[in-house]
Amino acid sequence: MFEKLEEFINYNKDKKVVVVQGLGFVGSVMSLVCANSLSEDYAVIGVDLATEKSLKRINDFNNGSFPLVADDPKIEIFFQNSRDKRNFYATADPVAFEFADVVIVDVNLDVDKSSSENLSLNNFNVNLDNFRNAISTLGIFCQSNALIIVETTVPPGTCENVVKPILIHEFSKRNLDSKNLKIGHSYERVMPGPEYIDSIRNYPRVYSGIDENSAIETEKFLKTIIDTSLCELTKLNCTTASEMAKVLENSYRATNIAFAVEWSRFAEEAGVNLWKIVDAIRVRKTHSNLMFPNIGVGGYCLTKDPLLASWARTTFFGSKIDLEMSINSVSINDQMPFFAYQRLKSVFGQINEQKVAFLGVSYRGDVGDSRYSPVETLYRLIKSDTCYIKIHDPYILRWNELDLDVSCDLDDVLTSDRDLIIISTAHSCYNSEELITKILCLPKCKIFDAVGLFNEKQILSLKSKHDFSLIGCGDFN
Amino acid sequence: MFEKLEEFINYNKDKKVVVVQGLGFVGSVMSLVCANSLSEDYAVIGVDLATEKSLKRINDFNNGSFPLVADDPKIEIFFQNSRDKRNFYATADPVAFEFADVVIVDVNLDVDKSSSENLSLNNFNVNLDNFRNAISTLGIFCQSNALIIVETTVPPGTCENVVKPILIHEFSKRNLDSKNLKIGHSYERVMPGPEYIDSIRNYPRVYSGIDENSAIETEKFLKTIIDTSLCELTKLNCTTASEMAKVLENSYRATNIAFAVEWSRFAEEAGVNLWKIVDAIRVRKTHSNLMFPNIGVGGYCLTKDPLLASWARTTFFGSKIDLEMSINSVSINDQMPFFAYQRLKSVFGQINEQKVAFLGVSYRGDVGDSRYSPVETLYRLIKSDTCYIKIHDPYILRWNELDLDVSCDLDDVLTSDRDLIIISTAHSCYNSEELITKILCLPKCKIFDAVGLFNEKQILSLKSKHDFSLIGCGDFN
Repeated sequence: MFEKLEEFINYNKDKKVVVVQGLGFVGSVMSLVCANSLSEDYAVIGVDLATEKSLKRINDFNNGSFPLVADDPKIEIFFQNSRDKRNFYATADPVAFEFADVVIVDVNLDVDKSSSENLSLNNFNVNLDNFRNAISTLGIFCQSNALIIVETTVPPGTCENVVKPILIHEFSKRNLDSKNLKIGHSYERVMPGPEYIDSIRNYPRVYSGIDENSAIETEKFLKTIIDTSLCELTKLNCTTASEMAKVLENSYRATNIAFAVEWSRFAEEAGVNLWKIVDAIRVRKTHSNLMFPNIGVGGYCLTKDPLLASWARTTFFGSKIDLEMSINSVSINDQMPFFAYQRLKSVFGQINEQKVAFLGVSYRGDVGDSRYSPVETLYRLIKSDTCYIKIHDPYILRWNELDLDVSCDLDDVLTSDRDLIIISTAHSCYNSEELITKILCLPKCKIFDAVGLFNEKQILSLKSKHDFSLIGCGDFN
Repeated sequence: MFEKLEEFINYNKDKKVVVVQGLGFVGSVMSLVCANSLSEDYAVIGVDLATEKSLKRINDFNNGSFPLVADDPKIEIFFQNSRDKRNFYATADPVAFEFADVVIVDVNLDVDKSSSENLSLNNFNVNLDNFRNAISTLGIFCQSNALIIVETTVPPGTCENVVKPILIHEFSKRNLDSKNLKIGHSYERVMPGPEYIDSIRNYPRVYSGIDENSAIETEKFLKTIIDTSLCELTKLNCTTASEMAKVLENSYRATNIAFAVEWSRFAEEAGVNLWKIVDAIRVRKTHSNLMFPNIGVGGYCLTKDPLLASWARTTFFGSKIDLEMSINSVSINDQMPFFAYQRLKSVFGQINEQKVAFLGVSYRGDVGDSRYSPVETLYRLIKSDTCYIKIHDPYILRWNELDLDVSCDLDDVLTSDRDLIIISTAHSCYNSEELITKILCLPKCKIFDAVGLFNEKQILSLKSKHDFSLIGCGDFN
């Protein structure tokens, strides 16, 4: 559509420019939301690094193919709309930041973890290198009055202790004044899946700024992309507060999941069905967030955000005390696939050299995202029993983390010689009469439902033919 | 009203007899609910031990004075109604169990805890002695076809591993057949306070039985006292499952509170206001159970139920693994008043020999219950600084645990020579313009809000005159 950045800028010369830094699961969709602003006609530039993977993604964008598999029909509509308006361009050229009125920082900020044999967390290290480099790039190229909005999940205190000093330092090297420096923080609550776009556009948001002017500018901008007739914007007093809100949110969820892990094991040992117990308790409003048993936690956020928080507590605020519960939650959750594997073997016995079908690779149902998926760990454990494994997932064609092809044909995976079927992701397409009929037609085999896909009636039907086990459940009486 | 049990039985001779074992915070009100059954005209007998405290309570009952201070007007109506119908009698005579068609077990089951200096849990022991004795008493006196419903919070597995064998044993000593033994389990979700009665009668319930017949009989009985047009009864498959549901419910809450404790400390260190952060997060349905900062957990349940669960896991089900998260939660929560004390001193400096006013003794707002109140710990810590302390609570006249008188006159406590006012219980009567005016009229002093009683406007008003600190909050910008 455009050969060069200059062409894009020229074509859109009267528009305000929003540059999104980082074209991953958040930045890609954030770019579309900005290009389809509710009230402004933005020119949007997505910038990513010149890695092989990113360059492919940038090419996809510019050639009219949205680079993420997503179930949300709005993605295609928004993308096509931005193509029609010619107001979106992707590039690896950091010069793009020169044109930015607003920069949205959506780069990764990773944690390196080391674990012991049973997968419990031994140690971790917050790696700010990529993030620092990304902010330095902004400092090298941005205008000094650009509004920088950090959307990346960061350790609380990062805007004040990392972003601000780096920008001031880079500006000073360019003899630019920092008195107009505007840094806002507003975290996303993106949920890849059928409401991908709405999870940005129609979802309540928290924001803040390093000073009052930054907060005001951030709010003004957010109001052009978030539909505040449908959801609230909440201002917090400082960037540390909103940074904390994000990691607290995810730590809370990680903690509740870890809580369910412990009780799943207990329920299995005591021979009771935790699913029914949780159902009975969730009728209380005060207990509605109680989680069901599961194979494990995955994705980019819950597996690391509690660690970011604890790291910030000791590093930025000099506390001598870790956020122990939050760290423990990560450690317990990391072990979940290991527990699932143990449970599988305690119910079905040894599975060496058996033929195994995995239904689902994603860490979450109806989503095509295999990052830090617990299925990966369970796969490795079962693979180590020299099993012969076939994998199905309707949303993932290639399992990048394991460099494996994934089938999208159930008949190809549910062959008549399967010894064991593992339901490893709660994709709603698996909960169908068609799949159950298919499984019932197979010769007797073992079925391990690690995600609670089936209801009681379906389970009884499957049990009439096969050996069946459900995670977090000691019986089916 | 009646001189003797026989008179009561004679007067009510055509009625089914419900005996409630234990006349504490649950049993007392459960008795009233049974005596005011929706569909049956029960004769209800409350039985307690012949201790000094219980005998006083039994006398109160029989002399027309309900022995608990409660804000619920229905208590008085229900009590008066049972007086008018002459269908309730209290006694320490275990012979009463002979007449029972239904026994509801509401006796205590305690945990002995030992703690280290900073109040973190060192060790604990589940003490089943009282509970075993209570069940033995039933076995000695009950008819063999009486329905025994255990309502006490017990370690999961107790009905099967404790109650059933004791009853069989006692019955066999009396040459009674145990083939008609009926044991049900159905836990309460009683909330002392303005909806005390409704928290039994109109609140969803879980139930189970040691066999199908026990479950059916338990359900039949519950339907005569629970308004199932307003709330659901949920049957679980076995008594272990419903016993687990109860302790899981409370462990979940204890865990969520402990989560808030850790983050309160972090927020204080980072200089942000956790109240606003939690407010901003709770807009998400998935995070609506996130707790606010607080002085601590008290009451009879959350301080021990997670320990009951962990004990059962290793004792009844032979697990080698504790419920670590749940135990840690109790340990963290036990430390909360200690953290509050530390925070108080880090903000205000040393408080030795100062004059201190405590507003609130109860562990929970609008409730007159000082059992295991965190205020007790905070009181002891501040007392150790040789402070001169006055205490106010509208619901508690005598602080039994400390053997202290409590004032119900604010003017008596908020004298002009007070150095420090601690809001220690969130009684709604404290959140009044009258109280704030009263405090504003005092000479400058320190105010420590340990429960988040005041809103932002009220805080600003108090801060205009006094030094003010709020738990879980590092600033007020």
